Amino acid sequence: MESNIKLSIEGKHLHEKIIELGNIGRDSNDILSRLEATESEKEGRDFIVSIMKSLNLEVFIDKIGNVFGIWADEDNKDKDPIMMGSHIDSVGNAGIYDGCYGVLGGIEVIKTLKESDYKPSRPLVVGIFTNEEGVRFQPDMLGSLVYVGGMAVDEALKIEGIDGTILGEELKKIGYAGNMNPGFITPFAYIELHVEQGPILDYEGLEIGVVEGVQGISWKKIIIEGEANHAGTTPTNLRIDSGLAASKVNVFLRDMAEKSNGKTVATVGSLELEPNLINVIPSKSTFTVDIRNANLEMFLEESKVLDVFLEELKEKDGVKISVESLAQFDPVPFNEDIVNIIENAAINRNLKYKKMTSGAGHDAQMLARICPTAMIFVPSVKGISHNPKELTMEKDLMTGVNVLMDVIIELLEN
Amino acid sequence: MESNIKLSIEGKHLHEKIIELGNIGRDSNDILSRLEATESEKEGRDFIVSIMKSLNLEVFIDKIGNVFGIWADEDNKDKDPIMMGSHIDSVGNAGIYDGCYGVLGGIEVIKTLKESDYKPSRPLVVGIFTNEEGVRFQPDMLGSLVYVGGMAVDEALKIEGIDGTILGEELKKIGYAGNMNPGFITPFAYIELHVEQGPILDYEGLEIGVVEGVQGISWKKIIIEGEANHAGTTPTNLRIDSGLAASKVNVFLRDMAEKSNGKTVATVGSLELEPNLINVIPSKSTFTVDIRNANLEMFLEESKVLDVFLEELKEKDGVKISVESLAQFDPVPFNEDIVNIIENAAINRNLKYKKMTSGAGHDAQMLARICPTAMIFVPSVKGISHNPKELTMEKDLMTGVNVLMDVIIELLEN
Repeated sequence: MESNIKLSIEGKHLHEKIIELGNIGRDSNDILSRLEATESEKEGRDFIVSIMKSLNLEVFIDKIGNVFGIWADEDNKDKDPIMMGSHIDSVGNAGIYDGCYGVLGGIEVIKTLKESDYKPSRPLVVGIFTNEEGVRFQPDMLGSLVYVGGMAVDEALKIEGIDGTILGEELKKIGYAGNMNPGFITPFAYIELHVEQGPILDYEGLEIGVVEGVQGISWKKIIIEGEANHAGTTPTNLRIDSGLAASKVNVFLRDMAEKSNGKTVATVGSLELEPNLINVIPSKSTFTVDIRNANLEMFLEESKVLDVFLEELKEKDGVKISVESLAQFDPVPFNEDIVNIIENAAINRNLKYKKMTSGAGHDAQMLARICPTAMIFVPSVKGISHNPKELTMEKDLMTGVNVLMDVIIELLEN
Repeated sequence: MESNIKLSIEGKHLHEKIIELGNIGRDSNDILSRLEATESEKEGRDFIVSIMKSLNLEVFIDKIGNVFGIWADEDNKDKDPIMMGSHIDSVGNAGIYDGCYGVLGGIEVIKTLKESDYKPSRPLVVGIFTNEEGVRFQPDMLGSLVYVGGMAVDEALKIEGIDGTILGEELKKIGYAGNMNPGFITPFAYIELHVEQGPILDYEGLEIGVVEGVQGISWKKIIIEGEANHAGTTPTNLRIDSGLAASKVNVFLRDMAEKSNGKTVATVGSLELEPNLINVIPSKSTFTVDIRNANLEMFLEESKVLDVFLEELKEKDGVKISVESLAQFDPVPFNEDIVNIIENAAINRNLKYKKMTSGAGHDAQMLARICPTAMIFVPSVKGISHNPKELTMEKDLMTGVNVLMDVIIELLEN
């Protein structure tokens, strides 16, 4: 089975670089926080750019601050490049793998190919996309969104951060307000290597996730209004209990998720009651609903099913219900050919893998709008992410980056 | 049907006195707050005592501050008196009827009997019980609890209020630390007239509630612990969702209440989730459960049924559950003979009435420990109470006080 493997990467060097990058942006309490366009994040960018330059990559920065390290030569420079990459901005109190693995993994592939005197038929590019996490500036995945034309660059540069700063000014301040127009390269393909940030691979003892797409996501804020009344003196038939109605929605959503055979997940993550007193029937419940599904048809259908349930609840419980959509992104299917190439690479290396969808959002879902795209996942121990405990074992880091390299070679040669 | 009616009271004078008392203890924003043993409450007590004295009642104050106005004469002074009464302390931002109606109603009965030269076969007493609301000092119904021997008076006088004051000192300060031992009168019977503080009479278009007892009350704080995980990447079968488990408890409680045919009410009034974020499965839910039932057997049985449900939930959902009892009072059945006398009085006046239990706690449930006791309810418009919107129509105030007088006469004469 391993007869087709041309090159292999040891995981140690890559892991060291991830740890090195992970030490940039720590405060005096050793907490990692590399929010977009801060001084910490500038240092992270500088670190990556210096590695790119040490590999003789040509570095370009676009107007939204996306950074691209390109390896092209006279023979292939006219062809559309294959792009790898991810992001290096982090959440507050972050782990070290999220995003960074995809950027440093792409660089590791180029380094390995270069060191073995490989002559690629197309240019290879590693991209760092601005503000993937969306913590300091909203929305998330902003750099890739702008890159694919989903938002005008001028509009994006005016975005005000949670600290009152303006993205465009902050990018200038750190020296990463470039002059290239976003979208200046149309990739031949985009492959993003990433830690799963979920427990499925770890729980199932698998080494590789072949990512077929990103789940659609629907965030809603629901307010249910009932009537505050005395918990002792109000008989059941005269109650309009907004907290009970919210509970019914929560139980309904779990039923919906269970009926989907694992395709849908649904969560009531936040809930507040008013007046929130032990002996008063809640007059108002305000809660959020997070529904995700990778299948567009099911995703849209489930939204309708929830609406029907809420209508019935109004009728039955006598409550008033208002629903506000906070976010709505349709599922993004990745390119089947690329998915097949990733799957074949996993088979070829005799790896335990599964085809899966991503529950989190990634830059790849934006790039999928302009070129054939897919992702490679490696396990996150216990599924922990956005947390200092985020962990992927060195062996898994190695496995993932080798699959990435195999996929790149396959795309270059066939 | 009205042939047996000996006397009748016009409602206007009583209503005026209620309004007069309701104007004592208002702040500059016209908010009524007559918390126990404050300067405002002293003024309220003085107001009642001056009325008692104007009717030539002999006023006694006991060590816990309960006030009693006694009408006895040479012929009846050796017999156990019939007691009426309630309380005049209020919650913060209160209405004017709660408690005050029972005290002023009792006085109105004595005034009417006196004015018609009625010669009662037993002494009549109107009591004002200390700290019924339990807002400034805990527990509520403290004065009547101490009166019936449920708590030692020395212990009660040491209770520290929410403002750091000591009840005994505050009673001295307002001049209502008396010298009688609580329990110095054992009543022949105790009848408490009160606004319903619930919507049943108003909703059903009734004039009188013949109160057969006070519901048992169980207050619990339940903490359910699950696991915080990413709402997008954690599949349903790997979730331990503490918020969902809390929702299931809420839905279960409503089912239990519905199965009880109106005998049980159950409420989840307060609930907090952690970390309470839209895209994180709640790791911890902390909520309260309020269960009430007037039937002791059912009340104890339902507590067990809830325990069984929680055990099953631990098993099924993989959550940890801890339950803390915040309060547990068994149901108090009132005296059947007194209940029958009240019912007959309602029938005799051709009133629309129902036998019912009280969902709220009252001093009567303490007095029931030492003498035959029952209560008379009149409608609260929309069931609103502990609120400036608390309202009982003058006609209903009149109806209730006449029933009270009929019951007193019946007890005196038969």
